[in-house]
Amino acid sequence: MANLTLVIGNKNYSSWSLRPWLLMRMHDIAFDEVQVPLYQAHSKQDLLARSPAGLVPILYHQDLVVWDSLAIMEYLAELFPAIHAWPQDQKARARARSLSAEMHSGFSTLRQQMPMNCRRQHVHIDITSHLEQDITRIQDIWENCLHDQPGPFLFGEFGIVDAMFAPVVTRFKTYGVTLRNARLRRYQEQVLSLHPLRQWYEDAKQESEVITESER
Amino acid sequence: MANLTLVIGNKNYSSWSLRPWLLMRMHDIAFDEVQVPLYQAHSKQDLLARSPAGLVPILYHQDLVVWDSLAIMEYLAELFPAIHAWPQDQKARARARSLSAEMHSGFSTLRQQMPMNCRRQHVHIDITSHLEQDITRIQDIWENCLHDQPGPFLFGEFGIVDAMFAPVVTRFKTYGVTLRNARLRRYQEQVLSLHPLRQWYEDAKQESEVITESER
Ligand SMILES: N[C@@H](CCC(=O)N[C@@H](CS)C(=O)NCC(=O)O)C(=O)O
Ligand SMILES: N[C@@H](CCC(=O)N[C@@H](CS)C(=O)NCC(=O)O)C(=O)O
Repeated sequence: MANLTLVIGNKNYSSWSLRPWLLMRMHDIAFDEVQVPLYQAHSKQDLLARSPAGLVPILYHQDLVVWDSLAIMEYLAELFPAIHAWPQDQKARARARSLSAEMHSGFSTLRQQMPMNCRRQHVHIDITSHLEQDITRIQDIWENCLHDQPGPFLFGEFGIVDAMFAPVVTRFKTYGVTLRNARLRRYQEQVLSLHPLRQWYEDAKQESEVITESER
Repeated sequence: MANLTLVIGNKNYSSWSLRPWLLMRMHDIAFDEVQVPLYQAHSKQDLLARSPAGLVPILYHQDLVVWDSLAIMEYLAELFPAIHAWPQDQKARARARSLSAEMHSGFSTLRQQMPMNCRRQHVHIDITSHLEQDITRIQDIWENCLHDQPGPFLFGEFGIVDAMFAPVVTRFKTYGVTLRNARLRRYQEQVLSLHPLRQWYEDAKQESEVITESER
């Protein structure tokens, strides 16, 4: 299988881009990478020429355009069943989809107050009570998953749910959030040390664009 | 198949509840309905006791809890393959998932400025330019789908994408948005005249709770 092209934004900032990119890299799915730096003068026009929703990530496969991180990963799960992007057990899969959908539509406080910014560390921000709730819920999710599973990932093998939460792992590092126990910290370290994620960080460092709203 | 229970919010206001409810009723999937009126003193506590995310809709199937409208509909698509909740063609399915994910995570202006309110009609609101963009994009989506399909629904048979956009159909009625051509108006009328949706409206009329923020 080839002919896959993934359009992504700035590696430093684009959390939605990271998700399908990481899933593909973790499972050695070959693809061409196209980068569109976001929030520049022509970015929106460029994105709208590439996909009707005008957002990254976007996946091209032959004449097909798939947009939105979750829809892209569902499509990859269908194209490459052997990677077990979703858990194989039907009930586990339903829980995995619930968690992915919760991330996809929720955590608005965390997303606003802790924008992804891979280059930075030890950034101090005020933890409001809404943000605290999001941080607590994320840890509950990870803890529940890791408790039920042999690990090392949320449903055993690296899958869509891990990809969904990977940008949260990076945010917790950037904003110095200390996770509540060793099991959670081990999960965080495991994700941060994944070879593809290390590469993503390296590439982010090389980028020169600065998105002011994401710099706290 | 039985033993399905769907927890929903107020029929008048809860757009996310409507989506899986309508999909199930359109395909005669039997389920018990449990209603939790939202934003009352004990609502949040009640919801958190029922699902970890504390939001409706929630689906129970034996010992399994599935939350989030999209995850619930994915699960129903798996349990009941014969209803063709997603298009059968793989590329059409990828497009359908892109559109559903776009609705699931987007259209924040439309969702905020035009809250679902089935009981009301001819409500005047100012159409800001962001709202106009959302309304235009929705019509583009419907038009593209209906152009490619024999109809009467967005991908032929009534499926998840129609369920996803059904609350938008009701909003356009409530806020008097005139669709741009006869094909779109026909789609809107077709959805509004579905027997299950008529029932939903009837039930909404019987509800006495008022959510002030959703009354413009
Ligand atoms: N729900 C979408 C969200 C995509 C999204 O918001 N992408 C941002 C970057 S992370 C974007 O394209 N922003 C550019 C813009 O808004 O012009 C997904 O899951 O893919
Ligand atoms: N992404 C979720 C959104 C669910 C949602 O926001 N539900 C609202 C009602 S439509 C709710 O439960 N609100 C109650 C609350 O926030 O306490 C889904 O698709 O199910």
